[in-house]
Amino acid sequence: MRGVLVIVSGFSGAGKGTVMKRLMEKYDSYSLSISATTRKPRDGEEDGREYFFKTVGQFEDMIEKGQLIEYAKYVGNYYGTPKEYVEKQLDEGRNVILEIELQGALQVKEKKPETVLVFLTPPCADELENRLRGRGTEDDETIKARLKRAAEESDYMKKYDYILINDDLEKCVDDLNGIIRSERWKTDRNDSMLAEIKKDLSRFN
Amino acid sequence: MRGVLVIVSGFSGAGKGTVMKRLMEKYDSYSLSISATTRKPRDGEEDGREYFFKTVGQFEDMIEKGQLIEYAKYVGNYYGTPKEYVEKQLDEGRNVILEIELQGALQVKEKKPETVLVFLTPPCADELENRLRGRGTEDDETIKARLKRAAEESDYMKKYDYILINDDLEKCVDDLNGIIRSERWKTDRNDSMLAEIKKDLSRFN
Repeated sequence: MRGVLVIVSGFSGAGKGTVMKRLMEKYDSYSLSISATTRKPRDGEEDGREYFFKTVGQFEDMIEKGQLIEYAKYVGNYYGTPKEYVEKQLDEGRNVILEIELQGALQVKEKKPETVLVFLTPPCADELENRLRGRGTEDDETIKARLKRAAEESDYMKKYDYILINDDLEKCVDDLNGIIRSERWKTDRNDSMLAEIKKDLSRFN
Repeated sequence: MRGVLVIVSGFSGAGKGTVMKRLMEKYDSYSLSISATTRKPRDGEEDGREYFFKTVGQFEDMIEKGQLIEYAKYVGNYYGTPKEYVEKQLDEGRNVILEIELQGALQVKEKKPETVLVFLTPPCADELENRLRGRGTEDDETIKARLKRAAEESDYMKKYDYILINDDLEKCVDDLNGIIRSERWKTDRNDSMLAEIKKDLSRFN
C-alpha cells in the first residue's frame, strides 16, 4: 500500500517541532521530508540533513522543471519541498510527513487532494502566549507579531482535514499516529485491494 | 463534542458480530443501537434488549412519523433503527455503532453525510467460505447463496468510507476504535471548537 502524505501546520508556538520529533522516535513508519532552501547554512547545519542548500539559480531551475511539490519565499529566501524524495518514500509504502506553513499546505492539497492536512493548536490562546514567552528568545514585538499572525491563520483552520490539540505531548503524538493509520484504511486509498477482493469473490457469482 | 455515528457492514461471515461485541467490551465510549423489528421474539429474547418488538401497524406508524433513521424489509419482516435513542446518545457525546446492511447504510449516509461507514471483510474469499462452512449450521445451498450475495455486495464497498480487514480480532477492534477516535478530530466535526479558538485569538488581532 502506498504511504500517506501528511502535512502538519499550526500556530507558531503550537509545538510542531517537538511533536514531529517525538512521532519519528516513537513510530518507525514515517519519513521526514527535507526541504530545499536558498538561505545560507548556519553553523553545524549539513547539506541533505537539515536542508538541501541551493543557489537561487538552482532553486528557480527546480521550480521551472516542476521538481517541487510546493515552495514559498520568506524574508527573501526560497523554501520548498523536492518532489522526488517524497514520491519515492510514498511508493515504498512509507508515510511522509511535512511541516509546512498554511500557504504551502494549501498548494499541496490542491495538487494532491489525497494529502492529509493536520492543524496543531495549543488548548487556548493563553497557553499559546505562555509558550511563546516561555522560550525567552524573542522580544515582545516579535511575540505580538506571532500572536497576530496566529489570529489571522485561525481563519484557515477549517481548510485542514483534522485539528489536533497539543495539550499532552504523548497523547498528541499517539493521536497523530492514529489519524494517519486510520487514513490508510480509507476505501479511496485502497483501489487495488478492493479490485482484488471483487475479483476473488467473482467465482461465486 | 457530539459523538460519531458509525455503521459497520460487511459480508455475511466477515465476523461483524464478534468485532462489535469485543469493541463494546474493550472500549467504553460506544453505545450499540437497538433495532426495531416486526419479527416475532425468539426464545430468550427480550423487548428492548435484542430488539424493540413492534406490530406491523406500530412499525408503519414509526415510518410515517419519520421516527426511523433507516429501515428495510427482509423475508417479510421490517427491521429499522429508531432515531430518538441514537440522537440522544450522540448529543451526550457517545459514539453510536450500528450493524446494518448495505441498503440501510447507504440510506443513512444520504440523510446524514457525517456518518462513518466501515466495511468489514475477511482477508480473502477462501477464508470467507471457510468461516461460513465452519459455523456448521447451514446447508450448502444457503452458504452458496451467501457467497453469491457477497460477490454482489463487493460492487458497493467503495461507497464506504473505510474498509477494514478482519484477520486478527484484537487488531481489527483496535483499528476500528482508532478510525472512530480519529474521526473525532475532523475539522468538520469541530465547528464550535474552531469558532472558540478563533474568538480566543481575536484579541491579538
